[in-house]
Amino acid sequence: MSDVAMTAKQERKLTGKVPRDAIRMFDLPRVPQAVLDGFLELGDLTSTVSDAMDELGLNGVVPASKLRPTIQGSRVVGPALTLRNIEQPVHAYKGAQDRASRLAEIEAHNLAVPGDVLVIEGVADISNMGGISSTIAKRQGEAAAIVDGAIRDVAESVRIGFPRWASSVSPITGKWRIQTVEINGSIHICGVPVKPGDVVVADDDGVCFVPHEHAERVLKRAIEIKDGEGRRYDDIRAGVEVPELAQKTYVYKFEE
Amino acid sequence: MSDVAMTAKQERKLTGKVPRDAIRMFDLPRVPQAVLDGFLELGDLTSTVSDAMDELGLNGVVPASKLRPTIQGSRVVGPALTLRNIEQPVHAYKGAQDRASRLAEIEAHNLAVPGDVLVIEGVADISNMGGISSTIAKRQGEAAAIVDGAIRDVAESVRIGFPRWASSVSPITGKWRIQTVEINGSIHICGVPVKPGDVVVADDDGVCFVPHEHAERVLKRAIEIKDGEGRRYDDIRAGVEVPELAQKTYVYKFEE
Amino acid sequence: MSDVAMTAKQERKLTGKVPRDAIRMFDLPRVPQAVLDGFLELGDLTSTVSDAMDELGLNGVVPASKLRPTIQGSRVVGPALTLRNIEQPVHAYKGAQDRASRLAEIEAHNLAVPGDVLVIEGVADISNMGGISSTIAKRQGEAAAIVDGAIRDVAESVRIGFPRWASSVSPITGKWRIQTVEINGSIHICGVPVKPGDVVVADDDGVCFVPHEHAERVLKRAIEIKDGEGRRYDDIRAGVEVPELAQKTYVYKFEE
Amino acid sequence: MSDVAMTAKQERKLTGKVPRDAIRMFDLPRVPQAVLDGFLELGDLTSTVSDAMDELGLNGVVPASKLRPTIQGSRVVGPALTLRNIEQPVHAYKGAQDRASRLAEIEAHNLAVPGDVLVIEGVADISNMGGISSTIAKRQGEAAAIVDGAIRDVAESVRIGFPRWASSVSPITGKWRIQTVEINGSIHICGVPVKPGDVVVADDDGVCFVPHEHAERVLKRAIEIKDGEGRRYDDIRAGVEVPELAQKTYVYKFEE
Amino acid sequence: MSDVAMTAKQERKLTGKVPRDAIRMFDLPRVPQAVLDGFLELGDLTSTVSDAMDELGLNGVVPASKLRPTIQGSRVVGPALTLRNIEQPVHAYKGAQDRASRLAEIEAHNLAVPGDVLVIEGVADISNMGGISSTIAKRQGEAAAIVDGAIRDVAESVRIGFPRWASSVSPITGKWRIQTVEINGSIHICGVPVKPGDVVVADDDGVCFVPHEHAERVLKRAIEIKDGEGRRYDDIRAGVEVPELAQKTYVYKFEE
Amino acid sequence: MSDVAMTAKQERKLTGKVPRDAIRMFDLPRVPQAVLDGFLELGDLTSTVSDAMDELGLNGVVPASKLRPTIQGSRVVGPALTLRNIEQPVHAYKGAQDRASRLAEIEAHNLAVPGDVLVIEGVADISNMGGISSTIAKRQGEAAAIVDGAIRDVAESVRIGFPRWASSVSPITGKWRIQTVEINGSIHICGVPVKPGDVVVADDDGVCFVPHEHAERVLKRAIEIKDGEGRRYDDIRAGVEVPELAQKTYVYKFEE
Repeated sequence: MSDVAMTAKQERKLTGKVPRDAIRMFDLPRVPQAVLDGFLELGDLTSTVSDAMDELGLNGVVPASKLRPTIQGSRVVGPALTLRNIEQPVHAYKGAQDRASRLAEIEAHNLAVPGDVLVIEGVADISNMGGISSTIAKRQGEAAAIVDGAIRDVAESVRIGFPRWASSVSPITGKWRIQTVEINGSIHICGVPVKPGDVVVADDDGVCFVPHEHAERVLKRAIEIKDGEGRRYDDIRAGVEVPELAQKTYVYKFEE
Repeated sequence: MSDVAMTAKQERKLTGKVPRDAIRMFDLPRVPQAVLDGFLELGDLTSTVSDAMDELGLNGVVPASKLRPTIQGSRVVGPALTLRNIEQPVHAYKGAQDRASRLAEIEAHNLAVPGDVLVIEGVADISNMGGISSTIAKRQGEAAAIVDGAIRDVAESVRIGFPRWASSVSPITGKWRIQTVEINGSIHICGVPVKPGDVVVADDDGVCFVPHEHAERVLKRAIEIKDGEGRRYDDIRAGVEVPELAQKTYVYKFEE
Repeated sequence: MSDVAMTAKQERKLTGKVPRDAIRMFDLPRVPQAVLDGFLELGDLTSTVSDAMDELGLNGVVPASKLRPTIQGSRVVGPALTLRNIEQPVHAYKGAQDRASRLAEIEAHNLAVPGDVLVIEGVADISNMGGISSTIAKRQGEAAAIVDGAIRDVAESVRIGFPRWASSVSPITGKWRIQTVEINGSIHICGVPVKPGDVVVADDDGVCFVPHEHAERVLKRAIEIKDGEGRRYDDIRAGVEVPELAQKTYVYKFEE
Repeated sequence: MSDVAMTAKQERKLTGKVPRDAIRMFDLPRVPQAVLDGFLELGDLTSTVSDAMDELGLNGVVPASKLRPTIQGSRVVGPALTLRNIEQPVHAYKGAQDRASRLAEIEAHNLAVPGDVLVIEGVADISNMGGISSTIAKRQGEAAAIVDGAIRDVAESVRIGFPRWASSVSPITGKWRIQTVEINGSIHICGVPVKPGDVVVADDDGVCFVPHEHAERVLKRAIEIKDGEGRRYDDIRAGVEVPELAQKTYVYKFEE
Repeated sequence: MSDVAMTAKQERKLTGKVPRDAIRMFDLPRVPQAVLDGFLELGDLTSTVSDAMDELGLNGVVPASKLRPTIQGSRVVGPALTLRNIEQPVHAYKGAQDRASRLAEIEAHNLAVPGDVLVIEGVADISNMGGISSTIAKRQGEAAAIVDGAIRDVAESVRIGFPRWASSVSPITGKWRIQTVEINGSIHICGVPVKPGDVVVADDDGVCFVPHEHAERVLKRAIEIKDGEGRRYDDIRAGVEVPELAQKTYVYKFEE
Repeated sequence: MSDVAMTAKQERKLTGKVPRDAIRMFDLPRVPQAVLDGFLELGDLTSTVSDAMDELGLNGVVPASKLRPTIQGSRVVGPALTLRNIEQPVHAYKGAQDRASRLAEIEAHNLAVPGDVLVIEGVADISNMGGISSTIAKRQGEAAAIVDGAIRDVAESVRIGFPRWASSVSPITGKWRIQTVEINGSIHICGVPVKPGDVVVADDDGVCFVPHEHAERVLKRAIEIKDGEGRRYDDIRAGVEVPELAQKTYVYKFEE
């Protein structure tokens, strides 16, 4: 990104919902669009990416049993805009009386570029993101949201076609229970690390977070794997006997 | 309810499956129908009700991750008819030999008035309510069932359009494993208290149990919240910039 | 099975992915096809079978909350072809470098007879069976797979119409993490025992494993139960009052 | 208990912390003291009692992994005085402001006879019984407390030698979070049923709840089992070879 | 702390194990020593503090069932020095080969002032703090460590008398699995928020995190509660009857 | 082991509790005693072994939070004698009536050589090993038992000084609930693989299972790590400043 663009962005009006210095990064490292598009062309999306990550020694894959999709069949690829929530220090009833809303993912929507995926390290059993937030995200062009924690207003987000993956669903608001403490810092999501700009790859099987600096290598290997498995699928359909299928090598050892 | 009605009801034939004195209440405190109807008109149903309950300092909300709906998209409002199950003191195999069925939610169906919601504090991983029971419930006009415990015959209950929310699904019968010990007493459901007559509000996000004595106040506040959020949705659709959205107040402090 | 058939089978080419002596049995005890067909005609499938098993003192039922179906509404009956996986002794990254794939359910596909149900005692949160394996299973005529552990490529297996029940879904491969140590031995699945040839009965409520030596007795009793419950459903539809329904006996004590 | 004693008891001053009709029973069914003493003489206490219950087809045993003892090595036998707690309908902060303490196990202490064991179906992660309550229990001569839920002030209760078994330990008070809804009713504790007067048997391995009407039969069988196992221990110490130990029968089939 | 001291501190040599700007604060807000001492004089330590926090509407209490003490009977009060760990992006085996140790709680030991309590938001089932780290902590005069995650070398830390509270114990090193991403930022520990300088209060019942800005108010109320409960204990010992104990008010409503 | 010894052993009288062909191996691969002794001389036992295994890319470590020791401070090293239990196919009450005890770890005691560690892949919440079994194990000279599942009679086994690590404790017998299906086969224990003869290393932090074919390499590396950490401990005690400690390398890269 050019200096001009960066200046323009840093001058962007903020919401004031979090201190400016709690926004750790204004411009995400950007993986080329062609790489993002390349991921989307893979067949068994997260499985293939997960396999490629294994061969490069990279962690970053979360089972769908931990992060469940709200819209079956959705397939999403995009850079992570990260946000971290923790609990509020005051009881919710006192917070509601004081109108002390400290949930501030709206600032993330303010910073989002179309195609970004909002990734929230959140709080369990309490909603970190509801219907209004989903509607803003959709309008801003975000591709999806991934929430380690609860979300709410599932029906509304499905209706407008905004896919979310979350560890639980709950009508209980985070407004008086949760505070946003950091945007675009390093977070962890169900046991894997995520940095701003890492590539989020999500489907019905789960979510992969590909470190952005390795995205091209991962894609290259994923394509090799996909090609090998394509040949295996062909042989299955062609009626090759099982013992022969078992002995045949379709994906060769990874070499860089 | 008039004395005449009450007498009529108490003379109602019972099933004999539970002792009469284990039925703690024959006539539920009744919230006006207009209030029940009012809840159903809310948009993001349980979210809005949960928010109103927060501001009044009321507990009673269970995430859908704990009580999963069997029919996606169902929206239910009605008074709670409560029932409590515990385990039987004899092994299931002995119980099956002795034909000692002690599961008695059929008495609750006998007492139910159309529109009631059967709410069962039940036993985990064992069915507290099956297909026959759902069919009777549907015939008696019950609106839904909420079960903290397992249910079975999901396909059948979906087929006849009787919505249930339950913490698990299991084919294993409760007939020889569970006993009904109380009807229309105070129970707890996934960590929240429920009294007979409390208003059950359920959708895809979870279930709210609104104490009946506060139902009107909760509805009044819920409508204010819904109206505020409606204006927020309008602004989002009108393209108001995110920082402005973040600063604008749509729902004003609760005052009674 | 005749000696000729058995010889033919033992001479069948193996994949070599597991040692021959880790295949504990080549020919499953076979329940008559009429019995398998009889189970499929039951209405509330697993509920009825579970009830019959209770009366015979048989364990073997797993709730759908522990083994979730990938295709809602599927109903499957067939003999169990069992397989046991455990973890690999080397780290996945080292395994990926060494290309040490030890997942060998492909040998089970090799041994499968059309109609068999592959039952895997597997590893949690890691895929024990993916899309390629599902495609082979479908081609070999297997009826379904039951996995105590994770599966992947759910979308692909749904697309080709191969139903699976699994305890979780995860894109993370078992190739470098899991080893198959035994085929057609005794295994346990979510707390119940399964032997090769036991009858697998699965639907939206869960999975029953009927010991093959008791399959006919279980079916006989299940039909009696189904008939009794059919009369109960008739009475409900006919408007019989609840107290009368509660008192009437529809299923008589089990006598052999 | 004589009529005179019973009258005396019913006239006993109550605390007023729960409505009189929420006390379901004033005088527990009493198992003879000799039976209680007999249980205490068993060696591997809960194991032997659990084995005897199995042979009579009785449920009622909870592992120590679910109900952990606060004082290692404690062995307790006594009749259950039961109590049921559920959550309060108002937020804790509001409750604290309103001084709405509804935790009322003090009424159980008021009703307790020396030797009784207080058994609480309580709330998870919140204290159902603290140091003051333990001190009163100790003074009233209660033998122990069993809590399915959290307890607090463990150090204090250990200091005064009052043993408790509980599913968790937490400093968070139940005063503003929990309400006592019933005393001496039927409850369930970690998956097993308990009635007032049932015999509680507890040690480091867990807790057994023996239905009072079966206490003598259970004790009789437990003694037979203990005697058989005593002979087995003797043979082991005498150096009898393992294959012979394995073949020898020490405990004969149960006959009544 | 004077400016001179602060300068001295900021010039303090760092370990270089985390970037300087990942240390969010060099000097913790300091609660007066008299306040810390005051907490230690309370009897039922965490219970009393938890009660006082409730009345002020403050969250921040974790049950001992979630954070288990390594040394029974320890009682600790001190300011929180906070640290946040997340997972590493590379597989442990690759990390071990590359000697990529990124666990950096040693920097926290470097910054610690005697009496500080190290509070780690860590990773589950993997050690966030071992024996060497405990030995350094002890030498630097730290009072204790609280770890939401696993610890190891429990025997060694017990031997040197350094108390720790942790959510699990595991021999598996975090060196190649965990990275420290932040020191003295806002963290969450088992569902409650902690800021640097907040007062940690820990004993056998659990851990309270008192927001430092409210420490004096909490202590003041805690002393009132302790005094009231002292009178209650006196009455119990004096033999006051239970109904009278139940009716008497010992702790009066909180007024500021 | 010499041929003579092996023959002697295979002729050893069996208990007959499991079929002979369910005993997969009669003589375990034996790691030299000097290697076992070498492990025992390590300081932070399981931590150091776990670290060495990491560097060789070996899985096999279980946290003490999953396998809890019954005797704090125990340190055990010995070869694994493996056993696998699964559930019985009949209800426990029926099994008790039929006296169908199928728990057969007594055969493992029969096969055990002094110093062996019995490792059981067992069933959760039900006892896989009680007091009599512990007493036999002690008499036969076994060093310890590791049970993924419940154990009972903890007090008795502690009294006789026989250490066990188990995932839970329960008085409920496995006699009528569990069957032993295999001895000295490959098993998994809390997510890691164990083969007969693998070296079990256990202490308060958890349990390591070192593949026997790698035991000498692991020990060699563990000693190097221990020596490096010894120097680090020396420097800490000598007062070396924290930044210098952090920069100094004590354990050099692993080279074979």
